[in-house]
Amino acid sequence: MRLEMEKLFALQADDVKVPWPPAAVLAPVPAVIVSCGRPDACPNLITVAWAGTVNSDPPMISISVRPERYSFPILLDTGEFVVNLPSRKMARATDQCGVLSGRKVDKFAHCGLTAKPGLVTSCPVIGEAPVNLECKVRHRLDLGSHTMFVGEVVAVQAAQRLFDEKGRFGLEKAGLFAFAHGHYYELGAQIGKFGWSAEKRKNKK
Amino acid sequence: MRLEMEKLFALQADDVKVPWPPAAVLAPVPAVIVSCGRPDACPNLITVAWAGTVNSDPPMISISVRPERYSFPILLDTGEFVVNLPSRKMARATDQCGVLSGRKVDKFAHCGLTAKPGLVTSCPVIGEAPVNLECKVRHRLDLGSHTMFVGEVVAVQAAQRLFDEKGRFGLEKAGLFAFAHGHYYELGAQIGKFGWSAEKRKNKK
Repeated sequence: MRLEMEKLFALQADDVKVPWPPAAVLAPVPAVIVSCGRPDACPNLITVAWAGTVNSDPPMISISVRPERYSFPILLDTGEFVVNLPSRKMARATDQCGVLSGRKVDKFAHCGLTAKPGLVTSCPVIGEAPVNLECKVRHRLDLGSHTMFVGEVVAVQAAQRLFDEKGRFGLEKAGLFAFAHGHYYELGAQIGKFGWSAEKRKNKK
Repeated sequence: MRLEMEKLFALQADDVKVPWPPAAVLAPVPAVIVSCGRPDACPNLITVAWAGTVNSDPPMISISVRPERYSFPILLDTGEFVVNLPSRKMARATDQCGVLSGRKVDKFAHCGLTAKPGLVTSCPVIGEAPVNLECKVRHRLDLGSHTMFVGEVVAVQAAQRLFDEKGRFGLEKAGLFAFAHGHYYELGAQIGKFGWSAEKRKNKK
């Protein structure tokens, strides 16, 4: 990248910025444990931080996986995966499922996680995860180091403890955590609700 | 979705789960302010929570935008966008840029944000954002309610305050926040570093 000094000096006028080599430093991102395979054929777990919501209706999530990963041919073969949202208690298992390979280790056993049946897919879901999102692959894009799988969410299971007595879903009870530039972080104080800036404006009037 | 009661009862044995209608409840996700357009032609800001990293090499980020949004034809036309990571101080502006429409409001002016030149693209970047990721659109997928734009990160600007005296980049100084199921959250305590579960095992030996 050629530095354009004129632009840089202009920026330094009131907010000093420095150029940085192009990198995917988007943060925070989720760190989810993806389960794939079938209970009787190569069930595996792989932690994915390159994951995101990509569509609301129908609900779709993307995960990106390197072709050299053990889970890759399983994903290609079955066309199904489950995004398991880990709780704080599962942070160590999340890290393990990102570091270890299913070629050498049965990650369910190694990490003390329980495989449970899915509602709609043949993939195992993680019993301990407060939320399981079962997905069917609708699109695949080879992007370079990673292949992106776009999955439609076809079934959701959530821990009963996340619902209050009126049946309202409270994801804040799940104890989720985030990933940012190589580190895992708990979610901290709530700042506000989507749309809160408009509500305050209305109240002022 | 037909409920398969047998499966449900099996799950309830030791970890009570309930089925939930299919939805994209992946969380936490980033809430970023995307800038698009050109300084002299429709510069606009749009907050996007449907964003994620999708590739490492080359670095790529996806953002998903509804076709009815004011920014949509601008993205189609220019093939460029900037992902601006907002700091905690910019949470209100982030919410405003998600609620308001560029058809009615100059969001830069309304939110008190400063348009600065990009290094490589013609899009304005947000001066106040600690990190700006300039992207060129490489793929587009129409998924239903949203269209996903996959952008290659072609330039990065980061606030100088994020670097220490040895030039090491510390994204934790940026004061980023996350979005989860309709709410914005500060990042809380650091749980660990990617790979920490393996390091601990080594130390024990």
